Amino acid sequence: MSFQKSPGTQDILPGSVERWQFVEQTARDICRRFNFREIRTPMFESTDLFRRGVGETTDIVEKEMYTFTDRGNRSITLRPEGTAGVVRSYVENKLYGEPDIAKLYYIGPMFRYERQQAGRYRQFHQFGVEALGSADPALDAEVIALGYSFYTEVGLQGVRVEINSVGTPSVRANFREKLLAFLEPKRHLLCKDCQSRIERNPLRVLDCKVDQEHFEGAPSILDSLDEECRNHFDKVKTYLSDMAIPFEVNPKLVRGLDYYTHTAFEFKAEGIGAIDTIGGGGRYNGLVAEIGGPDQPGVGLGLGLERTIMLLEHQERELPDPHRVDVYLVALGEAAERRITQLAYELRKAGIRAERDYQGRKMKAQMKSADRYAARFTAILGDDELSRGEIALKDMASGEQKVVALDRLAQEIAGTK
Amino acid sequence: MSFQKSPGTQDILPGSVERWQFVEQTARDICRRFNFREIRTPMFESTDLFRRGVGETTDIVEKEMYTFTDRGNRSITLRPEGTAGVVRSYVENKLYGEPDIAKLYYIGPMFRYERQQAGRYRQFHQFGVEALGSADPALDAEVIALGYSFYTEVGLQGVRVEINSVGTPSVRANFREKLLAFLEPKRHLLCKDCQSRIERNPLRVLDCKVDQEHFEGAPSILDSLDEECRNHFDKVKTYLSDMAIPFEVNPKLVRGLDYYTHTAFEFKAEGIGAIDTIGGGGRYNGLVAEIGGPDQPGVGLGLGLERTIMLLEHQERELPDPHRVDVYLVALGEAAERRITQLAYELRKAGIRAERDYQGRKMKAQMKSADRYAARFTAILGDDELSRGEIALKDMASGEQKVVALDRLAQEIAGTK
Repeated sequence: MSFQKSPGTQDILPGSVERWQFVEQTARDICRRFNFREIRTPMFESTDLFRRGVGETTDIVEKEMYTFTDRGNRSITLRPEGTAGVVRSYVENKLYGEPDIAKLYYIGPMFRYERQQAGRYRQFHQFGVEALGSADPALDAEVIALGYSFYTEVGLQGVRVEINSVGTPSVRANFREKLLAFLEPKRHLLCKDCQSRIERNPLRVLDCKVDQEHFEGAPSILDSLDEECRNHFDKVKTYLSDMAIPFEVNPKLVRGLDYYTHTAFEFKAEGIGAIDTIGGGGRYNGLVAEIGGPDQPGVGLGLGLERTIMLLEHQERELPDPHRVDVYLVALGEAAERRITQLAYELRKAGIRAERDYQGRKMKAQMKSADRYAARFTAILGDDELSRGEIALKDMASGEQKVVALDRLAQEIAGTK
Repeated sequence: MSFQKSPGTQDILPGSVERWQFVEQTARDICRRFNFREIRTPMFESTDLFRRGVGETTDIVEKEMYTFTDRGNRSITLRPEGTAGVVRSYVENKLYGEPDIAKLYYIGPMFRYERQQAGRYRQFHQFGVEALGSADPALDAEVIALGYSFYTEVGLQGVRVEINSVGTPSVRANFREKLLAFLEPKRHLLCKDCQSRIERNPLRVLDCKVDQEHFEGAPSILDSLDEECRNHFDKVKTYLSDMAIPFEVNPKLVRGLDYYTHTAFEFKAEGIGAIDTIGGGGRYNGLVAEIGGPDQPGVGLGLGLERTIMLLEHQERELPDPHRVDVYLVALGEAAERRITQLAYELRKAGIRAERDYQGRKMKAQMKSADRYAARFTAILGDDELSRGEIALKDMASGEQKVVALDRLAQEIAGTK
């Protein structure tokens, strides 16, 4: 009997995992500098939380959740996204009671039962931030700057920022009327998706990839903004310009849910063929209250790590720190073998990445192994050297070889880093 | 409506999460030096894998698994431990075909539906390593040394290592007979658990905490070892002594499952009251074949992060790098506020952890906020300074204050790190 991973899941193996580590480490370091602190919420939550926090009528909740009954007869769901859990935790742990606002980030697996296709996983991974407790437009700009820094620092090229204001719920209700008046006469010209979406969510119709030709002269939400919304949006744009972050205003950009307010933004990059949305977010001043907390504003972003990593590979970005060992230890004879077991441990304690053979291979095969590990040095211990307390050290780049005292080996290797 | 986390799960919040990050970072760094590379397997696998890999009659499989039917009508289970998935991946991805052995580590969540009690979580977290492809006793010693290094480097005190040999299946069958002959006459004296365990797993009876008084004169598995097993065990002990790792031989130490062979080990520490097992592992030369792979030997260890962190807190170990910001920026007036939004971004790009106010608070409240973030510096920007392109910089430890050019601020702060 042999076993396979479940459909839609993946193994991340050595050779690939180093890129994941680099991308995640970059995200963590940026969050450190922006003073966002990590929060870890559970992999599953009560199903009701996502119904409320993601939205009853969304595709995610209707079709894609991993929802189960546990042994205690509770309905639980593997988290399909990160925001609902973070906001639940913010409310449950009363983080809104702290004197400073909550600037939080998360990195980890999410789960959606999606149709299988290339590049789509049922367990996928997101990096996201949520800033809760302030309506300051400087914070919107900061969150966008954080996302932009992430893509820049992982080395992704050609990333563009699009922003929009989706106003407040009352602004949006107003705009909805105008938009419906414009769309209704064209209804028969639109694609099926749009026809069915007109009543439910006319704002998303404008974002349709198929029907753009029919939308010339469509009203823009930016013309419907009230003074407060315009003010907020102007400030966000000013701050982004001050920071020299290149952005475009896209008045058709919307986020799915009702509790989004003011700023909406997306990051786009040239994908494999088409322009892809690789991340996005916005301000959601209604969500904390929706989840049972006090009326606290919030702004956040979320982005998929699979897509980021796929694009980095597509752009053939090199890893800044590929896997390579500092020293490969070769033993000739049984006494030497015992000594290098101890020696490897001593080197590792001293901070050196040391490797050796475990398969009783001949010297030549061990040297090949050292090459595969891209060892900076090999150190060869025979009985002669051992009896003199020495070891032969070879620099693999220069080919230079010298004999050093065993108790000086760590210093020799560390000194050349 | 308000929401709570599911019973048995936890939120790890800023303030606690820094300790998790430190412990995990230590584990990763040790693995780097020992040349173990990370593998990430999915959070769920087919249920059959765990039945086979953990064992049909274990408590885990019988009572504690989160087992569900997905939308494709497959039985899947949230992983209750880390080894089965890693070995499945090793086999499925044919890592045994590589010329070098596989030295792998994992860190992440595991899931068991356990009875609720203090310190027990239904989502808990493990760090583990698996070395597959070599029967060399040096590798057993290396894995033990890696675990010992982990506890030492995270700062846990009083950690002890216990080791044993559980032989091979044929040695164990032999020993089982001798042990049954010893236990049978005492059966009526033993606790209920042991009475029911005598036939199924008499080796584990010897490990019982209640019945020790009845086990004087019990046969020791070490007397039943054949030459190969004795040889292997002697070498492990020699290597550990060479490495100066303090250990004790405990002939009663067993691991649960049939595929364990040769070395078994546990790490123990003084807990809150009693001596706790905080981690363990051993050699499992039968497992890869059991999971459908070739007959490849393996050795590994697993340890719980919750327990490690609980003990570190109990021992009041300080964090080497607590949360503190480098500089807190204070703006006086609207023009200054705009300028510090840009300035914060510039500092963060330059590697500096910068924070500011987002709530329109008065200067005094902002200075208190700087204290809460343990800011090394505060930098205060008023209209006067702004017009001169300068900013007032205060060293919070010394109280010293000076005026620096805005475009020299990053260097000033970085220079004092």
